[in-house]
Amino acid sequence: MSDSESVSLENLIKQDSPLETNSDWSDDETAAKTGLPVGSLATGLCYDVRMRYHCEVRPTTEVHPEDPRRIYYIYKELCRAGLVDDPDSIQPLAPRTLKRIAARNATEEEITLIHSQAHYAFVRSTSDMSDDDLVFLEKTRDSIYFNRLTFASALLSTGGAIETCLAVARRHVKNAIAVIRPPGHHAEHDDAMGFCLFNNVPVAARVCQRTLGDECRKIMILDWDVHHGNGVQKAFYNDPNVLYISIHVYQNGKFYPGGSEGDLDHCGEGAGLGKNVNIPWPDQGMGDGDYMHAFQKVVMPIAMEFDPDLVIVSAGFDAAAGDALGGCFVSPSCYAQMTHMLMTLANGKVAVCLEGGYNFRSISKSALAVTKTLMGEPPDRLAKTAPTAEAIETVGRVMTTQAQYWRCMYPKPPNNPAWTNRLHDVLREYQAHQLYENFKLTPLYIYRNKISKSFENQVLASANYHKRVPLIVVFHDPPELMGYPDPVTSKLEAHNCWMSDAQQDYIGWFISKGYAVIDVNIPKHVTQVPATSKFENEDENRSTATEELASYLWDNYIDLFDKREVYFLGIGSAFAGVVNLLINRENLYKRVSGVVSFVAENPVRAVASSTQVWLSKWYRDNSLVFVAETHAVWRDQDRKPSKRYGTLFKSTKSSLGEMMTEHQQQVFEWFAERADEALDETEDEADEDAAM
Amino acid sequence: MSDSESVSLENLIKQDSPLETNSDWSDDETAAKTGLPVGSLATGLCYDVRMRYHCEVRPTTEVHPEDPRRIYYIYKELCRAGLVDDPDSIQPLAPRTLKRIAARNATEEEITLIHSQAHYAFVRSTSDMSDDDLVFLEKTRDSIYFNRLTFASALLSTGGAIETCLAVARRHVKNAIAVIRPPGHHAEHDDAMGFCLFNNVPVAARVCQRTLGDECRKIMILDWDVHHGNGVQKAFYNDPNVLYISIHVYQNGKFYPGGSEGDLDHCGEGAGLGKNVNIPWPDQGMGDGDYMHAFQKVVMPIAMEFDPDLVIVSAGFDAAAGDALGGCFVSPSCYAQMTHMLMTLANGKVAVCLEGGYNFRSISKSALAVTKTLMGEPPDRLAKTAPTAEAIETVGRVMTTQAQYWRCMYPKPPNNPAWTNRLHDVLREYQAHQLYENFKLTPLYIYRNKISKSFENQVLASANYHKRVPLIVVFHDPPELMGYPDPVTSKLEAHNCWMSDAQQDYIGWFISKGYAVIDVNIPKHVTQVPATSKFENEDENRSTATEELASYLWDNYIDLFDKREVYFLGIGSAFAGVVNLLINRENLYKRVSGVVSFVAENPVRAVASSTQVWLSKWYRDNSLVFVAETHAVWRDQDRKPSKRYGTLFKSTKSSLGEMMTEHQQQVFEWFAERADEALDETEDEADEDAAM
Repeated sequence: MSDSESVSLENLIKQDSPLETNSDWSDDETAAKTGLPVGSLATGLCYDVRMRYHCEVRPTTEVHPEDPRRIYYIYKELCRAGLVDDPDSIQPLAPRTLKRIAARNATEEEITLIHSQAHYAFVRSTSDMSDDDLVFLEKTRDSIYFNRLTFASALLSTGGAIETCLAVARRHVKNAIAVIRPPGHHAEHDDAMGFCLFNNVPVAARVCQRTLGDECRKIMILDWDVHHGNGVQKAFYNDPNVLYISIHVYQNGKFYPGGSEGDLDHCGEGAGLGKNVNIPWPDQGMGDGDYMHAFQKVVMPIAMEFDPDLVIVSAGFDAAAGDALGGCFVSPSCYAQMTHMLMTLANGKVAVCLEGGYNFRSISKSALAVTKTLMGEPPDRLAKTAPTAEAIETVGRVMTTQAQYWRCMYPKPPNNPAWTNRLHDVLREYQAHQLYENFKLTPLYIYRNKISKSFENQVLASANYHKRVPLIVVFHDPPELMGYPDPVTSKLEAHNCWMSDAQQDYIGWFISKGYAVIDVNIPKHVTQVPATSKFENEDENRSTATEELASYLWDNYIDLFDKREVYFLGIGSAFAGVVNLLINRENLYKRVSGVVSFVAENPVRAVASSTQVWLSKWYRDNSLVFVAETHAVWRDQDRKPSKRYGTLFKSTKSSLGEMMTEHQQQVFEWFAERADEALDETEDEADEDAAM
Repeated sequence: MSDSESVSLENLIKQDSPLETNSDWSDDETAAKTGLPVGSLATGLCYDVRMRYHCEVRPTTEVHPEDPRRIYYIYKELCRAGLVDDPDSIQPLAPRTLKRIAARNATEEEITLIHSQAHYAFVRSTSDMSDDDLVFLEKTRDSIYFNRLTFASALLSTGGAIETCLAVARRHVKNAIAVIRPPGHHAEHDDAMGFCLFNNVPVAARVCQRTLGDECRKIMILDWDVHHGNGVQKAFYNDPNVLYISIHVYQNGKFYPGGSEGDLDHCGEGAGLGKNVNIPWPDQGMGDGDYMHAFQKVVMPIAMEFDPDLVIVSAGFDAAAGDALGGCFVSPSCYAQMTHMLMTLANGKVAVCLEGGYNFRSISKSALAVTKTLMGEPPDRLAKTAPTAEAIETVGRVMTTQAQYWRCMYPKPPNNPAWTNRLHDVLREYQAHQLYENFKLTPLYIYRNKISKSFENQVLASANYHKRVPLIVVFHDPPELMGYPDPVTSKLEAHNCWMSDAQQDYIGWFISKGYAVIDVNIPKHVTQVPATSKFENEDENRSTATEELASYLWDNYIDLFDKREVYFLGIGSAFAGVVNLLINRENLYKRVSGVVSFVAENPVRAVASSTQVWLSKWYRDNSLVFVAETHAVWRDQDRKPSKRYGTLFKSTKSSLGEMMTEHQQQVFEWFAERADEALDETEDEADEDAAM
């Protein structure tokens, strides 16, 4: 396969260019980049045993998780894999071993790029405190311990991060990993917390910017530590040149470091608006599929658009499988995959700096996988790749939020002032019209001062609601909708949207039986005037407001006669208000003949009360609760659901609409059996009414 | 920084494990994988000058684009970059040069794994045909030429692909690139077409499966050639073990190879259902941002979930910037980025096989970027990263389609039988109710046999429609909707959806002026009975049906008196029917006093006719056409829009709703000026009506 034949072959080849542009073809321009200028460089490693000096002065039986051995074990793992040229280690097994990057003490000037002078002085002051003072100090702070070598280790940790990032940014190495401690990402401008003294990565980022200028202006910090990096976020909150992306467990602000700062609506401010991206997992237990999903949908598109000059990874390994603090299940392969993805950025300038991670095996395996990937080993295949519904939900909300700031994120939020009608109100008006046309239901007067304005137009009743016939009070959620939105604008085409409105059949049947009906629609969000087209979560006080309404209806429209049969039909989460009424209004349940409810996604509500001892038994005897087969209540197969949930019936369907259609006959029979007797008693009266 | 201190340090370190799991920590288990077993291997290169023998026997002045020099220039580019250890080339500049993979002739047995015996025999038969016969043969086929060495080159090309894929799958190399021709991906079971003789990649895939068994069972073929790989798709259409993903220009089936096979609804069949993923660009001109978007949103998530044992790239470089046939703008860096992403799969087993690509410089630069990436060089940064609206739309539709087959793809399509009400019908009923409540508009009787059933309930008129007052006939699209769907289920919350219904104000004003109004809603899709919740495109016959309706209304309800003033108000694409009526009904325009229309996204319609010479001038004098500022009609700043478009007015708004709100006053004045005079004349009659 030598090229000796090529001379004769040239004759075969035509001299004309097949396409116009081919005539521009010239050899000179193409010789610009030769070889593998970056690919031939080594990967850097920063590690210094002296960072292990920081430890508890008076260890208790409970060993502190931020244990000095953390970095030692990682380092040993890299040695054992043959990646380090260490005299005490096995022979190097990589064609090119890790290139050592020497750690050094960070200077006061460097540290005060991020921290206050006072904070620096405070940490320094710990270096000559007595043991007693150090132990006392620990108690005054949030999750941090000190010894007399803490300051020394912290200086080295920050200095190690600086030298690592500089080596990468200056292209002295292809990329690098800094196995450093104490970690940094919780440390704030004026505060040490969460095992962190100085915020290593932000200091390093600022030093790179100062030292290298335009060559390293835009820096992306990707924080996959399981905790939110509050310190990093704050350091650059109004900085347009530092993009901070954090994937962390949030637990509605209850997970460390807590508060709302780690939520997805914290997007930066001022010039930095949009340059802070939080991906807050709703709970622990997240795994590879979730992280890959977040990377594919949010991290990489935004990172590509930001186009950083340098990528720094705040690499805690506490989301790793095996880490008890993190409680997540990220595999070493997944860390490798994420690293590989980040290597497409900044022409490969990636500096990985250790943050948290407390299971020795997990952090060692994870750090090894990351290091091998940095060195050019392809990442291992993942065992589990599908994201959970929780991850899809979270990532979807992050995308909608970030779409305000990033061209690559869709759909864009609606800011079109012509969106004047909230569909909820349109649909309720449609329903009211239908219920009037078909069954002559009309609005009940609701006294407004007591009851939220929202309930205007939401309560409809049949003409016989005040007669002594069985009364069915229906509390339901707004109709279910489904549609295909335009991926760019979120616009929907009316012909590609559907509504499910299964309660119409129920009301029709009740009316046909001669029962009275009160139909109550409980909006998830009460439209404000003027209407805005902002995304709204379900109103926080929805359940309380529903209970108030139920109570008001009870007093004014339901409990009119002693012997009246009253039934409740609950559809979806609107039912919560009814349950609260049963629990909170003493002895009210004795006036209720039965309760049917449909539960698809909201929790099944227990009906029990410490002051009404018979309530729970009454509920069991007089309720029929259909629960979707996909509901969590069925998940634990070894345990029967609580009796206080009433008489549960496992549906084979999963949505409210489907369930209501499926169990229609069963519900009708249930009502007929109980209510028809009552109806007979009032027949005479009803006849009189009809004659009127 | 030696580890000599570690002995003493060990004493500092506690022996207790901080976490229970840390006690499991053992050295033995961790030593499993050492070094960089894959990363230390070389990248493979297959190239053989003899593949250049296939060329036209009788070249015309127009050189054929599938030019033998294609592979030569790519090879030379790799040499020039110092990546090849070639005696005639410059010194190698990479730490490890490309490892040569020798091409060989594919065997008949191998080729007939994909092709028919007859096809093999046919291609072989060309090797001893006369020149005249070969030239004649070329004319009987679709885009393919032959010479007596065609067969030889084709055997080598396929054999090269086989050896390349085997070397990668067997891990003799880290990964590899095969610089081969003639290309293969258009070649079908029994047909040579589109410059392709034997389908190299599918043959190689089958050989790998046969040779390596379970070790190489699942193969992913990623085809980024700008043309759809019809041959590859067909070869594995019902095969669950070969995932074919193609990104190509489709142009509604008009781009080569044409037909509907390349459309996104071709997803495989039988056991192979879901294992065929087409990403069909609506047109040429796509670039880096679009390809990255497709990779991030579709290619990588699906590929991760499929988790192949081997990745083969059908790597045409005709989507590259500079390729006149492809007309797209993919940069070498983008090819590198895509390659880098694919390298996360199959533990890095990626074999790149050349397909099309006809600009020498573009293919050389692109292939070089791909090769360097395979060798470990980080990809360059991209200049343009934002996807176009066309790409977002296409990718979104692909995601919805593939969500049926892939766990990672969302939102899932709705298959819930409880979705009974198409929202379009709900909303029109709501509108009708509102128009009755507010303005006493009632349905007009529409004779059904002639007019589609769809128009039931869609035509509403004020009580005075048959009086001699100015009549405004409003043809409008269904109301605009917008909403935030659930990212998993596509479900919408009614309180997070909005409707824009700006024509209500217009109708209110017309009524207040005493004009007559006919309000016509033109659905985009006519609901069928029974209703399905399937996604529907706009009905193809919508414009014709609208014209029919307009014509029917004209005869029965509009053209009642000689001297009546008739105006049309068109909102959105519903207006097309009115335009057709004006053009197709001879002299009808002479009875129309004026036309106002709002155009946001649909094309601006020219009103002109060869049989009605004054129509166009009349339209210009009597029309007011508001066009969104974002509309294509304004794009060419050097050219004034055609006069036949009427009197255009460039709105500062971009959606119908916004435009109608913005220009309300202007439209009211326009109508008042013209119609009020007519109204004065009929005032007496109107007074009489009121007295009735």
